[in-house]
Amino acid sequence: MLSGTNVQAVKADLRAQAVETASWAYANSGTRFKVFAQRGVPRTPQEKLDDAAQVHRHTGAAPTVALHIPWDRTDDYAALAAYAGERGLRLGAINANVFQDDDYRLGSVCHPEARVRRKALDHLLECVDIMDATGSRDLKLWFSDGTNYPGQDDIRARQDRLCDALAAVYERLGDDQRMLVEYKLFEPAFYTMDVPDWGTAYAHCLRLGEKAQVVVDTGHHAPGTNIEFIVALLLREGKLGGFDFNSRFYADDDLMAGAADPFQLFRIMYEVIRGGGLTPGVAFMLDQCHNIEAKIPAIIRSVMNVQEATAKALLVDRAALSAAQQTGDVLAANAVLMDAYNTDVRPLLGEVREELGIDPDPVAAYHRSGWGQKIIDERVGGTQAGWGA
Amino acid sequence: MLSGTNVQAVKADLRAQAVETASWAYANSGTRFKVFAQRGVPRTPQEKLDDAAQVHRHTGAAPTVALHIPWDRTDDYAALAAYAGERGLRLGAINANVFQDDDYRLGSVCHPEARVRRKALDHLLECVDIMDATGSRDLKLWFSDGTNYPGQDDIRARQDRLCDALAAVYERLGDDQRMLVEYKLFEPAFYTMDVPDWGTAYAHCLRLGEKAQVVVDTGHHAPGTNIEFIVALLLREGKLGGFDFNSRFYADDDLMAGAADPFQLFRIMYEVIRGGGLTPGVAFMLDQCHNIEAKIPAIIRSVMNVQEATAKALLVDRAALSAAQQTGDVLAANAVLMDAYNTDVRPLLGEVREELGIDPDPVAAYHRSGWGQKIIDERVGGTQAGWGA
Amino acid sequence: MLSGTNVQAVKADLRAQAVETASWAYANSGTRFKVFAQRGVPRTPQEKLDDAAQVHRHTGAAPTVALHIPWDRTDDYAALAAYAGERGLRLGAINANVFQDDDYRLGSVCHPEARVRRKALDHLLECVDIMDATGSRDLKLWFSDGTNYPGQDDIRARQDRLCDALAAVYERLGDDQRMLVEYKLFEPAFYTMDVPDWGTAYAHCLRLGEKAQVVVDTGHHAPGTNIEFIVALLLREGKLGGFDFNSRFYADDDLMAGAADPFQLFRIMYEVIRGGGLTPGVAFMLDQCHNIEAKIPAIIRSVMNVQEATAKALLVDRAALSAAQQTGDVLAANAVLMDAYNTDVRPLLGEVREELGIDPDPVAAYHRSGWGQKIIDERVGGTQAGWGA
Amino acid sequence: MLSGTNVQAVKADLRAQAVETASWAYANSGTRFKVFAQRGVPRTPQEKLDDAAQVHRHTGAAPTVALHIPWDRTDDYAALAAYAGERGLRLGAINANVFQDDDYRLGSVCHPEARVRRKALDHLLECVDIMDATGSRDLKLWFSDGTNYPGQDDIRARQDRLCDALAAVYERLGDDQRMLVEYKLFEPAFYTMDVPDWGTAYAHCLRLGEKAQVVVDTGHHAPGTNIEFIVALLLREGKLGGFDFNSRFYADDDLMAGAADPFQLFRIMYEVIRGGGLTPGVAFMLDQCHNIEAKIPAIIRSVMNVQEATAKALLVDRAALSAAQQTGDVLAANAVLMDAYNTDVRPLLGEVREELGIDPDPVAAYHRSGWGQKIIDERVGGTQAGWGA
Repeated sequence: MLSGTNVQAVKADLRAQAVETASWAYANSGTRFKVFAQRGVPRTPQEKLDDAAQVHRHTGAAPTVALHIPWDRTDDYAALAAYAGERGLRLGAINANVFQDDDYRLGSVCHPEARVRRKALDHLLECVDIMDATGSRDLKLWFSDGTNYPGQDDIRARQDRLCDALAAVYERLGDDQRMLVEYKLFEPAFYTMDVPDWGTAYAHCLRLGEKAQVVVDTGHHAPGTNIEFIVALLLREGKLGGFDFNSRFYADDDLMAGAADPFQLFRIMYEVIRGGGLTPGVAFMLDQCHNIEAKIPAIIRSVMNVQEATAKALLVDRAALSAAQQTGDVLAANAVLMDAYNTDVRPLLGEVREELGIDPDPVAAYHRSGWGQKIIDERVGGTQAGWGA
Repeated sequence: MLSGTNVQAVKADLRAQAVETASWAYANSGTRFKVFAQRGVPRTPQEKLDDAAQVHRHTGAAPTVALHIPWDRTDDYAALAAYAGERGLRLGAINANVFQDDDYRLGSVCHPEARVRRKALDHLLECVDIMDATGSRDLKLWFSDGTNYPGQDDIRARQDRLCDALAAVYERLGDDQRMLVEYKLFEPAFYTMDVPDWGTAYAHCLRLGEKAQVVVDTGHHAPGTNIEFIVALLLREGKLGGFDFNSRFYADDDLMAGAADPFQLFRIMYEVIRGGGLTPGVAFMLDQCHNIEAKIPAIIRSVMNVQEATAKALLVDRAALSAAQQTGDVLAANAVLMDAYNTDVRPLLGEVREELGIDPDPVAAYHRSGWGQKIIDERVGGTQAGWGA
Repeated sequence: MLSGTNVQAVKADLRAQAVETASWAYANSGTRFKVFAQRGVPRTPQEKLDDAAQVHRHTGAAPTVALHIPWDRTDDYAALAAYAGERGLRLGAINANVFQDDDYRLGSVCHPEARVRRKALDHLLECVDIMDATGSRDLKLWFSDGTNYPGQDDIRARQDRLCDALAAVYERLGDDQRMLVEYKLFEPAFYTMDVPDWGTAYAHCLRLGEKAQVVVDTGHHAPGTNIEFIVALLLREGKLGGFDFNSRFYADDDLMAGAADPFQLFRIMYEVIRGGGLTPGVAFMLDQCHNIEAKIPAIIRSVMNVQEATAKALLVDRAALSAAQQTGDVLAANAVLMDAYNTDVRPLLGEVREELGIDPDPVAAYHRSGWGQKIIDERVGGTQAGWGA
Repeated sequence: MLSGTNVQAVKADLRAQAVETASWAYANSGTRFKVFAQRGVPRTPQEKLDDAAQVHRHTGAAPTVALHIPWDRTDDYAALAAYAGERGLRLGAINANVFQDDDYRLGSVCHPEARVRRKALDHLLECVDIMDATGSRDLKLWFSDGTNYPGQDDIRARQDRLCDALAAVYERLGDDQRMLVEYKLFEPAFYTMDVPDWGTAYAHCLRLGEKAQVVVDTGHHAPGTNIEFIVALLLREGKLGGFDFNSRFYADDDLMAGAADPFQLFRIMYEVIRGGGLTPGVAFMLDQCHNIEAKIPAIIRSVMNVQEATAKALLVDRAALSAAQQTGDVLAANAVLMDAYNTDVRPLLGEVREELGIDPDPVAAYHRSGWGQKIIDERVGGTQAGWGA
């Protein structure tokens, strides 16, 4: 272990960290070329929660589950929340979907036609109703809105429409509710998205007020973007609402968090900690697609990857780092950071888990549990959940 | 018109240029988020040919149509070829599909399992059978094969498997048949594709022999890649088999050719002409997705964009350019190229069309024809064609 | 000419447009590998103005010249302004340089050491003094500040320091003076710049007040960034102060404006016009490096490229565009834009020039003038101006 | 330590690995904006060797030093080799420089003018003469040749000229000498380089013969390029001659190897080992710029980073990996790789060093040695070495 580390404090932070998993990550997903269905995939929101409970059981770190409306639509959200509660879970962020109705071919809240904008807004407001029922704090807003061709629509008019819709939703939020505005460089729009970067999301949130915060999806940036810089800046501005974690080599690949660039995830977590963001005010959510790998163990692994990056970031000798920075010793400062990164934190996290009464190796424990086979055997018939694109 | 231009020669080249359209571009397509179905979309290969005939009717430049197997599977390919012939069309390249069967989750000809590789190879060989029936010259091979995670499979072993499959297909080709090997940086694989760049495709084609050529899809490169350089190089090596034209701002956006960067398309066509590639030996194919725009007029527009880029490239004053290049006059050489690019070639192409007996404005003529409304009215019921992902 | 165009209004706008050239673009520049000195290059700020006067003489559109301190340091700025005035020029933006002193190895206003920060701030304040003497309106602030290695310095503390420096400079500005804050993704810092994107520049300007505006250098973005979106957004927020025009295929290549992607420059100018930015409130500046080509004709060509893009953007049939956008006709809307782009506006600009009493072909007129040979003959001895890196 | 590891074999491989340092990395370097000179920097090739000897002394893994001509030009190369030998070093690759003469503004071996091409070729041949004198095996050829503007020169003609020059140099090589052809996406040319990618280098090397090999500079690729795939492919083709190691977040940043993406360096080393490339046939060279950090400890750190990546790659449980790959278990296969990556190999490398009789912590040992202060004190006056751009 690194010298000077307060191991108990590090462990306490690790025990406190919660990673929210996404209901849709338990379901089938794919690319535009093919969705490879997997056996045992949930058919209902309840079955998704059953799977999520397995992730929490083996990691002790995934107590909440984000819903996506309408993919998780149900008649009785309070009952769904109770179902979650019985499995040791809570319902997390409500994710609005204004991109899959035929009406949304040219956008939702930015659509040129008022009727479509109204329809989209109504859905967003319905999502706040659902939050009231589930007790969710966060409304996550990702808009697929944008244009594919130059000239297709008026960039500025679309901003005006977006502004109006966000204001209407903001007005509807309860005292303890927040709106998390997500940005994305491209896809599904290929000329311009209406919220392509953090600056755009920030400008809107600033105008709206305190309950509007920016959410950083780690796969939604241009090549070369320094994500941890954005994190540091948003924390400084009091505008970081949370993360959609995943990883990528190219575009929005939606691979497991930490799989493509574990050093980047570590740097992000370092800036979170440095900026005082390791608090409930910053939501740590996974938003990934397990297109070819088994879903539950992939999610377990992703939670572990976030934990390992956090553990390493907590191990950074902040005093030594600051001293080296102050004296302008580039190599010494970098070395302090790398010492933490190069530490094998798996034993430490194993201890944390054992102190929580769970297996130090969550993946092995999951495989031993037989759950994977059980759902293959039992979930026969019905319609598997998926994006329904 | 630029001085020194042999207008008749330019017109002759433009009249001779043929752009192959893709059967699947007449069908529904979309992103992983949503396929927005359009009214009037074809339900059969025959209806796709009906639409393609409209494109050829109004442009005079789209006499062939590429097929995609199994999307265009039929019991009688000779009959389909005859159907095309009756509409003034010929069947073009056969596009193999080894990415949509459940067996292909981890690859096709590069799959770790021999059974799956054999199945994929059998499909490729079947495609050559179809070529025999349709009289197609080109087998287009795009492999979605690759891996999503480091370590998932052995990069080199996958190359060995690819090598074996290509050799088996090559062996099966008839004397007048070719194999066009496509490359792509990423998607649907997100760690590495098995043929990610032109160098990989070239290395395989070189080993195979003369009938194996590289096909350049203009949307399949890393950001910043100079595509016209690749074109020049492949022509110099005698290995450019053709193009899949489309355009992009980000990744494989599959927008209309020339829509995102018309200057790039001009530069590509200039290198084609410079390298002697304006011949039947280089296939000019469109491979695009019209996710939100009307499909037939979008394809007409794309053909026109290729023609306009070609016309401008033909107008380059090669003697003046060469003189400026020889003397190292950077600005003069660039200016010669830009003079051609900045010329409005639409009147010239209007004349070419009138000499062919068609309307100088293909899009307007198409809209006047009523075809768009007719197919909406008549194509009721049935299952619309699409990628079937 | 496009139907419905008010040619006189277009010409009036083109006559009114002024492009500011940069004093340093007349001097030697290069890459880290080599600066290729050119014969005839200016040795003094006065000779730079002599060259700039040639650009204005032949284009009628380049009446102001930006200075760079200390590259253009002189004992008497009022005399330099008078020198410019005698040649029909005015002095434009003052560009501060806090990146070439040995003290700035780890930054300037963001440096960990207070002494260095103070030195940098003093230079910025000196630049405002110079503005008072030259009558310049704009102080252009580009900071090379950043870090090369993770951990090297504290990202957030550097923002605090930046904030303090900007506030001190803002305080010093006169009533008619502005501060233009530039952003850049990378180079010379390679891990993170302290102002890497428009969002960071915007957040600082917003806090400072009305006299702080963002300046967009067209070469300072990540691959794939939609620059015209940023332009539209900044205009909507009232925060677009101006442009540093240049073009690039890869990074900050600093090629001639419009050379790499003329369609992009057109789209940018369209959003400028659409957002009401074709006013003196938005400064159109060139910031380029003519490393291998003759400098004066390259700058003439760049001014012309900006004019051509502007002319095309002015020709867009706004009513037809709006109508197509309102009805969601993607192809029609795109076609309206492309019709303007595909128009050859060189004859129109030739007319504008003739009405101004200058040659319709500025490059040819420059070459006929003999100036290029004259400066080669006369500027013998002395030290050529350059970046002095 | 990972189970199943043959620790002695791993240690043997680590002891055998040699990393070649570059003479110019001990000298001043910078960006086009500024070279920040450092105190104590060498003034002669001999002083560079003195510094390189320190790196080897403390790492035991850097026995050879690459030279750059003319930066390391001397009257007596045999004497320089003897000087190296006395310090326990050997002279390594000879790096040709055909980019810093005024004649090379438009290229060297690809220049339109025959006289310049001849001059460049003569320099390359001179470098082979130097190899004869130094006993170097490898001639490293990086060409800055390319164009900045479309049309500037003829892409294909430049390939023809390149081909001729390479053939002439190849002909001159001795039996035990090799030619390593480097590629680079961009910089200093900004429209196209004449050898922009591995495919181009490969095509030339293939034509030349066995003694021509490709060298991979890890900073010379487009964003998103999978470098380890290229490594695997070149090894499969028998065409990987070596590496220029460095790291980057953006372009050719030339940061310390392993600093920007240690996981990538690990993946590269894994493919090297997998492909049988951990042999003298593959040259492991550093090619970096220490613009702001102390040079000698930065090079020590870089050597260590290569060693750590190699150690982790050697720890991969190849049997377990292969088993998981064969069964298509994506997560298990990835986990095998990540287990090795997540291992802290610093203790293992410490042991290797102690067995070599050197300090387990090379950086600390270097700092204790007093060399850094000694060269500051002693190297006073004279002209510091640098790129001389």
